[in-house]
Amino acid sequence: MKKSFIISLLLAAVSTASAQQALNAAPQMASPQIHADGTVTFRLLAPQAAQVYVTGDFLTPDQGGEAAMTRDSIGAWQYTTPVPLAPELYSYAFTVDGARTTDPGNVYVARDIATLSNIFLVPGAADSPATLYAVQDVPHGSVSKVWYHSPSLGADRRLTVYTPAGYEQNPQARYPVLYLLHGMGGDENAWSELGRAAQIMDNLIAQGRAVPMIVVMTNGNAAMVAAPGETPQGLITPQARLPRTMDGSFESAFPDVVQYIDSTFRTIPAKDARAIAGLSMGGFHAMQISKEYPDTFGYVGLFSAAVDRAHAEASPVYQDIDTKLRRQFQLQPRLYWIGIGSDDFLYDENVAYRKKLDAEGYPYVYRESDGGHMWRNWRLYLTEFAPQLFK
Amino acid sequence: MKKSFIISLLLAAVSTASAQQALNAAPQMASPQIHADGTVTFRLLAPQAAQVYVTGDFLTPDQGGEAAMTRDSIGAWQYTTPVPLAPELYSYAFTVDGARTTDPGNVYVARDIATLSNIFLVPGAADSPATLYAVQDVPHGSVSKVWYHSPSLGADRRLTVYTPAGYEQNPQARYPVLYLLHGMGGDENAWSELGRAAQIMDNLIAQGRAVPMIVVMTNGNAAMVAAPGETPQGLITPQARLPRTMDGSFESAFPDVVQYIDSTFRTIPAKDARAIAGLSMGGFHAMQISKEYPDTFGYVGLFSAAVDRAHAEASPVYQDIDTKLRRQFQLQPRLYWIGIGSDDFLYDENVAYRKKLDAEGYPYVYRESDGGHMWRNWRLYLTEFAPQLFK
Repeated sequence: MKKSFIISLLLAAVSTASAQQALNAAPQMASPQIHADGTVTFRLLAPQAAQVYVTGDFLTPDQGGEAAMTRDSIGAWQYTTPVPLAPELYSYAFTVDGARTTDPGNVYVARDIATLSNIFLVPGAADSPATLYAVQDVPHGSVSKVWYHSPSLGADRRLTVYTPAGYEQNPQARYPVLYLLHGMGGDENAWSELGRAAQIMDNLIAQGRAVPMIVVMTNGNAAMVAAPGETPQGLITPQARLPRTMDGSFESAFPDVVQYIDSTFRTIPAKDARAIAGLSMGGFHAMQISKEYPDTFGYVGLFSAAVDRAHAEASPVYQDIDTKLRRQFQLQPRLYWIGIGSDDFLYDENVAYRKKLDAEGYPYVYRESDGGHMWRNWRLYLTEFAPQLFK
Repeated sequence: MKKSFIISLLLAAVSTASAQQALNAAPQMASPQIHADGTVTFRLLAPQAAQVYVTGDFLTPDQGGEAAMTRDSIGAWQYTTPVPLAPELYSYAFTVDGARTTDPGNVYVARDIATLSNIFLVPGAADSPATLYAVQDVPHGSVSKVWYHSPSLGADRRLTVYTPAGYEQNPQARYPVLYLLHGMGGDENAWSELGRAAQIMDNLIAQGRAVPMIVVMTNGNAAMVAAPGETPQGLITPQARLPRTMDGSFESAFPDVVQYIDSTFRTIPAKDARAIAGLSMGGFHAMQISKEYPDTFGYVGLFSAAVDRAHAEASPVYQDIDTKLRRQFQLQPRLYWIGIGSDDFLYDENVAYRKKLDAEGYPYVYRESDGGHMWRNWRLYLTEFAPQLFK
């Protein structure tokens, strides 16, 4: 009786009247399969297809960014990487007869701007940064999607807030705060999804490498209240969004965020217990905000930052930068950290920015990694930046 | 200068070195396009494909569950529904030359057990239930993914918790709690994703139809600690999971959840301020838990519930049901609500269960809707059940 019921539920799950409502679920291949040696096999059942490719950031540029999959006699297509992949979180998709698709064998996807890709994680040795991207058997913090009111922007806006394990069990404890900003086209979900911020923080804290801290992930586009799909505009696929990302309004409204966080969460409301860091456009924002409010942030992180202010619109925020930077460094931030990949298209402007800091004798820590303007670098920078905070 | 920089960022966004890292983004078609009259057009650019279908729960059974798309001269495939779709949240996917794919023009997806489908929302008039599924311009509650310790199960486990708008701004206020349980194959993400629970509660509360309440969405599989992808097992595509979903262990460990919620959130820790409801297997759980702890829950909701206990394993929880039900109804729950679709495969066992309640004279409210064992019904039931709570 019990077995037949369960079987009926399972059968229902693959029909239209389902145990839960799984649509027309096709037979699935094990894909991706990560082998013990680190090679990875991708599979797709597409019996009528003439050409199937896999594209992904695991493919090196000299591989052209895509690899042809081969068909077997029943129409299952397959591709195995010729060499083991380095431990990392990777993204990929398939192209079936000219149409870009996700892998039906893999339910894990992440949106990057307007594109959905599958993700997979090649595990690494204990000392590999990629180990920090996996959910480990350690105490977990909470990840909350909350709305705050911004008087400056006249809107309720959405935030992602990470509170560390133990936050709820220690109602008297107070915590430092890292404000973590996304790049152009991103939103308040970017760092908690492709950035793996919660996993990285859980693991760093469990290993004793980072102190327990709150991490606040904002939406840096002042024209939006929330990530695509989380607004009254509905489930409209996002386009690249330019307005009000580099016009000074996000930066000048940032005290609203700090005020909300300090009044809502058990923070240590002090400069040396606040850090601000961001990637790409978020690095620009972190640079601008930290010098605009030099008493607010004791730690600054510029990850592949678009630091050249010539790109920004006219705004009081972007005026008198030299004077403001001088004031910021007079007040001696505990850490001013700059990281960039050697192939990043913003490399040269980071060189110029460092020259400017050097000329003034402003101290900073510089980290140059391989690679370009990629999440791989931004996750890595978070694993290196967070352990330096609040100690 | 500014424009050229922005253009370079945008160009970067569609190359491999990206502003954020969007993989090989193909040109996208507007899909789905929801027309003013409620018809919907799906589009896919697949120039080399020979056959493209759209499958979805908007297709009626007499349409066979799939519709052929037609190709234009450049290889763009298209299908428009012949009639307007009723306001609702729908799921769909494409089949390209035999391979099931998601729509690359639509970044909104939801996982149902082991299948990822795109979703779209056909908006309705103000009095349409589907209006409650959309993000509206109303105050929003917070949605948090938190971990609690279950001594009974010997594990840290993951929960989704909705706290209503105003929770943080009113630190003295206390709130009633609805415990909302998923079906077999689901997890603690099911109600907040396909169930649209946060949107439904935001809108019902903003309209004054439901009182502000906390909603707690558990993981009902006692062998798991969290949804697939959120555990140390990593990004492994889930299989249907049978163990420990109907063996009594989730039910007997439920006091751990209530204890955690009452000690962590500002609840009203009283029977008449607690409700428990669930869909399918979660309806079974809600029935079992509410009679096992008759002093704990004042409101009970069985949504398409798998109420027949013959399916369950031997467990003390499932013994002496008649005695326990008698005790539960002697203590007079404020509401015992049963909802099911007329085409649901669990319809007959709900008839039998109601007969049993009728024979004993136990009062309950019965709601029969159209359709089968589908999220469409479970969302609808939540919109009707929540307004009846805590008044």
